[in-house]
Amino acid sequence: MPHVTLNSDLPGITGLINTWPEPGAPIRDLTQFILRGENSLTEGERELIASMVCVGNECQFCSNAHISAAARYIGSKETVNTILNQPFGGIVSDRIAHLLAISQAVGRSGSLVNQEMIDAAKNAGATDVEIHDTVMIAALFSLYNRYVDGLATELPENESYYEVLADRLTTSGYVRKEESHGTH
Amino acid sequence: MPHVTLNSDLPGITGLINTWPEPGAPIRDLTQFILRGENSLTEGERELIASMVCVGNECQFCSNAHISAAARYIGSKETVNTILNQPFGGIVSDRIAHLLAISQAVGRSGSLVNQEMIDAAKNAGATDVEIHDTVMIAALFSLYNRYVDGLATELPENESYYEVLADRLTTSGYVRKEESHGTH
Repeated sequence: MPHVTLNSDLPGITGLINTWPEPGAPIRDLTQFILRGENSLTEGERELIASMVCVGNECQFCSNAHISAAARYIGSKETVNTILNQPFGGIVSDRIAHLLAISQAVGRSGSLVNQEMIDAAKNAGATDVEIHDTVMIAALFSLYNRYVDGLATELPENESYYEVLADRLTTSGYVRKEESHGTH
Repeated sequence: MPHVTLNSDLPGITGLINTWPEPGAPIRDLTQFILRGENSLTEGERELIASMVCVGNECQFCSNAHISAAARYIGSKETVNTILNQPFGGIVSDRIAHLLAISQAVGRSGSLVNQEMIDAAKNAGATDVEIHDTVMIAALFSLYNRYVDGLATELPENESYYEVLADRLTTSGYVRKEESHGTH
């Protein structure tokens, strides 16, 4: 049971944003900008970075949601999980693997990002903006994970919820409800 | 030296928002809403909650900035530090002390907020909205701390910077630059 009364049965972040749309709006704006805005990192790569943080923070709702979204871009959840477990396993480029390593560190603590990690990412071709965006995504999902779990939000009754959510996140993105053409 | 090139020498979050104003805007919007919007928690209490998270995450810039801001409302930095070290020491009410304990947990991990902590806060008079807002503030500052430290932003050369910042945060709040009447 959630720690506070929500105005809907929607699970995870969806019930929170439904109940508190006013703070939800800037969170959506930031997410839309950083995960769906114009970027040299693909949407799939950015969803991988988000997933890495959610898994590290052990946020079950967020992990399932973003692994499902990443899978739409990357191929399958199995592939996504393989990448998250072994970023340097050869599925993604070294550049992305180093960015995933940075995101994993940020999810734990910003101070865990050391110069060696940054140098390795830059040597593999990552730009300053890509490093910035990786840190920002990791910081943002550290917010989501804590908001979702700190209030003990429910998991969906049915796993298919994550697929419905992935449909939305890969077509309408994270725009505010009234701006979305999705069905949610 | 910051991990990425910034367009200014401004320390901590200020240099990041100056360099990346577009994602900075929704972060400011959310902060203004949750720290300065209408609320049954005073601005000082909300700055205390923010400070508790920054200290827990060992983000030096953020800790100094928000302890300085909290001190303007609470009385002195010494008092703020005493409250953060001993929330149940009698300076703040039990209700606020329990909310500070919740924020400390959220800063580490959302899953550390257990039912006993929530029951204790509610028994001390905390409302659902206050618990929500506490969790959201703690989640938001977990973002700030990781953004600021994950990019290895600089500290100010002079400690007086925090007082100038506290002037701004307690008069203009967190509104976007163009909306602010402050000098920064």
